[in-house]
Amino acid sequence: MKSMRRYVLVSYDVSDPKRWRRVYKIMRGHGVHVQYSVFLCQLTDQDEVELRYRLAEAIHPSTDQVLFARLGPVDSKRLEKQITCIGREFVPLDLKGLVF
Amino acid sequence: MKSMRRYVLVSYDVSDPKRWRRVYKIMRGHGVHVQYSVFLCQLTDQDEVELRYRLAEAIHPSTDQVLFARLGPVDSKRLEKQITCIGREFVPLDLKGLVF
Repeated sequence: MKSMRRYVLVSYDVSDPKRWRRVYKIMRGHGVHVQYSVFLCQLTDQDEVELRYRLAEAIHPSTDQVLFARLGPVDSKRLEKQITCIGREFVPLDLKGLVF
Repeated sequence: MKSMRRYVLVSYDVSDPKRWRRVYKIMRGHGVHVQYSVFLCQLTDQDEVELRYRLAEAIHPSTDQVLFARLGPVDSKRLEKQITCIGREFVPLDLKGLVF
């Protein structure tokens, strides 16, 4: 059985440019880059555990922070209601074609 | 009847420092500052409409972006499962005392 994927919005505050770049590189392999320090990912529980583990090794625990906001199951049609924006266009919301 | 409040995570990409500061000042009146360009808010539909209106006037529409991620009703107990972080401690999750 394939485990459920969730949309997870991941944002990070990393003060050091070198660490920021490290986090960016990890995140790039796991989702769509929507803002400077924000990615939208589709993660199973297992993906999330692994991602957290990798990020925890890359950041400085007392100064940096990575926030995970779970938005709900990927198969739901709610995403367009849940994530909206003003200003610059958002990445295409149909992320079904993407394989992480 | 009091209308329902939702937790809304608001993140913004604003390239110009002057505009960034303007957005920050608007956001400061509407939520808790959790990361450099991220606020956690408790908003009714009406609050969100007003906030969007003010932000739309402050940003540059083709270069800046403000993202709204609705996380669900304030009265739910799910927030602690929905928002988690690694690294630096998160703001206290019990935001009930805050009045916006």
